[in-house]
This record gives sequence, C-alpha cells and structure tokens, in this order.
Amino acid sequence: MADPKAKNILIIGGGAVGAIAALNLEAGGLATVTAVLRSNFEVVNEFGYDISSCDHGVLKGWKPSQVLSAVPNLAASNLPPYDYIILTTKNIPDIPPSLPSLLLPSLSPKNTRTVLLLLQNGLNIERPFHATFPTTPILSGVSLIGSTETRPGTIIQADHDRLLIGAFPSPDSTSPIAESEAATAAAEDFVRIYRAAGKTSCSHSPLVARDRWRKLVYNACLNPICAITGLDTGRIRLADNAITSLLQPAMAEIVAAAKAKGVVLDAEVIENTIHMDPLELYLSPSMLADVRKSNFLEFENLVGEPLREGTALGVPMPTLTVLYNLCKAIQWRIKVTRGMVEIPPQRKDPGN
Amino acid sequence: MADPKAKNILIIGGGAVGAIAALNLEAGGLATVTAVLRSNFEVVNEFGYDISSCDHGVLKGWKPSQVLSAVPNLAASNLPPYDYIILTTKNIPDIPPSLPSLLLPSLSPKNTRTVLLLLQNGLNIERPFHATFPTTPILSGVSLIGSTETRPGTIIQADHDRLLIGAFPSPDSTSPIAESEAATAAAEDFVRIYRAAGKTSCSHSPLVARDRWRKLVYNACLNPICAITGLDTGRIRLADNAITSLLQPAMAEIVAAAKAKGVVLDAEVIENTIHMDPLELYLSPSMLADVRKSNFLEFENLVGEPLREGTALGVPMPTLTVLYNLCKAIQWRIKVTRGMVEIPPQRKDPGN
Repeated sequence: MADPKAKNILIIGGGAVGAIAALNLEAGGLATVTAVLRSNFEVVNEFGYDISSCDHGVLKGWKPSQVLSAVPNLAASNLPPYDYIILTTKNIPDIPPSLPSLLLPSLSPKNTRTVLLLLQNGLNIERPFHATFPTTPILSGVSLIGSTETRPGTIIQADHDRLLIGAFPSPDSTSPIAESEAATAAAEDFVRIYRAAGKTSCSHSPLVARDRWRKLVYNACLNPICAITGLDTGRIRLADNAITSLLQPAMAEIVAAAKAKGVVLDAEVIENTIHMDPLELYLSPSMLADVRKSNFLEFENLVGEPLREGTALGVPMPTLTVLYNLCKAIQWRIKVTRGMVEIPPQRKDPGN
Repeated sequence: MADPKAKNILIIGGGAVGAIAALNLEAGGLATVTAVLRSNFEVVNEFGYDISSCDHGVLKGWKPSQVLSAVPNLAASNLPPYDYIILTTKNIPDIPPSLPSLLLPSLSPKNTRTVLLLLQNGLNIERPFHATFPTTPILSGVSLIGSTETRPGTIIQADHDRLLIGAFPSPDSTSPIAESEAATAAAEDFVRIYRAAGKTSCSHSPLVARDRWRKLVYNACLNPICAITGLDTGRIRLADNAITSLLQPAMAEIVAAAKAKGVVLDAEVIENTIHMDPLELYLSPSMLADVRKSNFLEFENLVGEPLREGTALGVPMPTLTVLYNLCKAIQWRIKVTRGMVEIPPQRKDPGN
C-alpha cells in the first residue's frame, strides 16, 4: 500500500488523536507508521483498533504497520532515524518521566534529520525538547479533532480531523512567530503527507502562537472548570450563572494574556468556544475524563503556562490563578491515590 | 430529672451539633428538650443515640425527652409556645423549603415569647427570620465543637463543646453590634441553662459579628477549598503549595472583608485556623463530607454572604469569588443528581 519512498513515521501515543493520525497517514500511502502504545498496547496488538470515524468510516481490527509497547532503541537495532516522530500523548511535565527522556532511544540529542511533531496541547511544550534536542526541527500540531477512546482500542471520531501545522520558533529566534526556511519546508512536507488520503483538513499555519492561544480559550478554561465542578461542556452551560461567572471571566483573561503576547484573537472567540461542543452531546473534556479516572491532569501547559506568561506581562488573571492552584491540589490528590506521595499515617480519633 | 421550672426547648436538627446540645441541656436539669429529627429519626426514635463524647462520656441509646419527625403544630395540639427554639440544621437558603417557613407551625409570626437561637454557621443567617418573625428575639450561637455523626444516630464528639451566645442586632438597630437589653437578658439566661451541666464552656459573647467572621476564616475558606479539591484538612496542608496559594489568600480576603465591616480579627487567626484541626486526624469539613454524599452544600451563608459583604465595601476578593462560583456550579450538579433540575436529553453521538 505504501509508496516505496514513504516516510517512516513513529507515533508515540495511540489514543483518540494518535490512532486517527496513524490511520490517516497510512491511508494516504505516503507514510509507514510505527505506533508506540501504552495502556491499550495489549488490546491493539492482539485485536487491532475498532474505529468508527466520520472521516474514515468504520474499521474493525485496523492496525498501523507496526505496534510497539516501548520507544524503539535505534542504536541497538541498527535502524535508521525516523523521518518524523509525532507525539500525541498528554503532556504532564510535573509527573516523571519527562517526554524528552522517553524519546532518547529513538532520537539522538544531536539529531538534525528527524523532524519532531508535537501534536499536543498547551503553551511552551517545545521548551524541554529544545533543551534536550537543540538541533532538531520541532513542529507544532494543533488538532481540532473530536475523537475519544471509549475503551482501550475503541475509537469514536465524531468530529472532523482538522490539523494546523506550523514550526515552533527556535529558542534563539528574535521573532516569536517567524519560522525558519527549513522549518517551513518540514511543515509543508508534513502537510502534504497528511493530506494525501484526501479525507482531512490539514494546513500549514505559521502562526503557531495564535493557534495555540486560541485553543487555550477552551483548554485553559472550559477544561479545568469542567474537571473541578464535575460538569461536562453541556451541563456547565446550563448550570446557574457558570457562563458569566466562570467561563467568560476565565476566557477573557486568556484573551488578555494572548494580547499581551502579541496575539490578537478574534472578537467572537469566547462565545464560539463556550458553544463549540454541541450542548446535548454532554461531552467531557479531557481533564474531566481524567479526574474521574484518577488520571493525572494535563494542567501545567494548559493552565500554568498561559497563567505564567500573562502574569509576567502584568495581565491580571485572578480566575486562572485560582483554577491553576485548585488543579495543582487535585493533581497532588491523584499522586497520593497512585502511591507517588507518602503522607503521615492517620491517627485514631481521640474521641474516646 | 428536670426541674419543674425547666425550660421547654425545641431543637430542630439532631445531628452532630444538635444531639450534643440536647444531651447537654437535659444533663443540666434546667431544660426539657423536644428534638425534631429528619434523616436519623427512625433510628433515634427506636434505639436512641449512641454517643461517645469527650464532655459527657459514653452513652448507649440515649434519647431526649421527646423525639419528633416534624416541627410540632402548637395551635393544633393546644401546646404553649416553647421557651427556646434552637436551629442546628444546616442553612441552605438556595434550596427550598426555607427554614422560617418550616418553623411556622411552632412559632407565630407575632411571637414575642419564644427566643430563637440559630446555632448555625455563616453570615446574615438571621435576616430571613427577622423578616418572618419581626418581633422574635434571635440569638446567635457560634459552636466550636468537634463532633460528627458517623452513621445515623451515632455521634462521636472528639473536641470540647465551646459555645458563644450573643444576640443578633435587630434589623433597625443603628449599631451593628449593640444588643438590646432584652436580648442580652435572653442570651444570659440561655448561657445559664446551657452551663448547668457543668461540662461545657458556654459564654455570653455580645460580639456576634466578630465571632461569626472569625469562624468564617475556616468556613468560607478551608471548607469550600477542601470540598472542591477533595482533600481533607490534613491533606490540604500537605498538598503542593495549597497553604500559600489557596488557604492563605482566601483567608486574607475574609480578614480584609471583616475589617471593612469593622471587625478586626487577631493577627494569628489565619495560621491558627489553617492548623486548627490536628493534621493526622485528616478531618473532612462539612462541605467535603456533603459533596462526597451528593448532599447540598451550605455555601451561600458561608461563602456567598461574606463575599457579597466584602465586595460591596470594595474589598478585592478574587479567590473567594472563584470559590463561590465553583460551589454554585457544584450545587447545581447536586440539584441535577437529586432530580431538582431537568436538563435536555442527551443526543446520540453523531459519529457513526
């Protein structure tokens, strides 16, 4: 199926976003995908994915070219570098191991050949990768897909795959948004490969900062507010005053922080984001799903970084501040639940 | 056991606070207590309370003089007015029925004879009672007891009963803290009755506003923060930065609001309140216990009223604002859980 000149692509993370990316890339015929899975490895390795996709139709037992349970060690197996490594995992820098350290078996710190694509949410996610892989071109992927893994290996993609690809500015760049020529070429090359299947909307969008801040209007606000209140994106809109007292103030702070960073978001972004998910689908954003399963929250890059960026520039962000600190306390609770933190034993009640 | 001149006292609410109050009043011999119970009526009516109290010792099957499942209708049963009616229920003005309406069978709107004691937390709780019973003397009871109902009818009192009794200023009073002579007399009379058992510390404290604001340092801050994060009063102190990022800012806002209202709290109140509960008991404050059981949160008088009072006087209260609005959203979720709010039916996922 794949072109002999097909790109070798390693996708790390085969959940709701990674599985559809893998499927779409292989459907285009210009890529051979190796997927590294964790929680769903056993199921997918044995039975493949069951995918019900508004872009690709219904597939039973579909598998990418190769399925692995760990990042391959290229040196040990004498394999060439990948053309692209795509990260689609959640980004939880406060919980070890770090993602850059996880990549080391497949990516040399002196790499210039492999292009890294961070298909992940949040701000400043490229920084630890720039630190570990200073010569690696790093692309930004902002996905607007509506896709969930309802149980391990079963993916329901209800909303179209729309992907914005740009290049993160290198750390020594003087412009916060300018791409290098090489990075632009890599971005456009990836867009070409991703569009080959003809099923999705993927475009080169050099305004990485704008794309990321725009998505933060959802991810820094709706996402933690739903997680903290236990309400999904439909119910939070029905709850007493939650739109005016929580969503709009939080979102206005993100819009103001973006503006302070030179990113002007369109005037309707707040109302559009509040009403983005169809109300009556009662969709749970990722952090709400995570808190329900006592999974770690992806809050540092989604809430913490925009908060730090905005406050450093003098933007008042009182709502985000409280949301961030509540997320941090909830994250600590999850660490205790998962045995990562030890606390003093409970003393018996001295009542008797 | 009771003196023939014993006061007739109706206690509404026989949970952790009401049961100990009933026990202590009858132990003093100067009161005959009728208790109106709700969730634990069946158990207590049949078997009595099992009480393990640091003040009163261990009692098996103890009952107040009379146990009822509803507020008695004095007119219908030709009974005289009570000397005191004590409310020890939670105060949830956003959920009907209102407490004043609940009292009507036992208290005439033209009453001048019965003294009403609100042994409940929060600010401005007397207002709806003043509106319904404009001529009734209303006392404030601020309890510093450590007592929990571990299951219906089983009470563990781990920390001493310390009760501050004062008179709420009448709505037309020019001074926000001055008591009328009649109210002072009622407060001192109640203190005498409550101290008769010689087991507890009960005193007349005319500074109702000060006592209530001081307790709000716990109840407007620790209480909702624990409820929202799912952490008890021990764990919240261990959690990453929660003391400095959540507890101290929220408490400082309450101290500032109190000050704007003319109530100067002592300098150590914040640190003392943070460390009030012994860490290793990992005690759950009331709102955390409530949210775990999907019981309604007592947040309007504990968080909402101090927030409204402070902001009306120009005190910046960004932390309390967010905590209040999150509580409101969580309360709405509990309303949905309890079938009090109907929401549009879920639409099937359009993914297929």
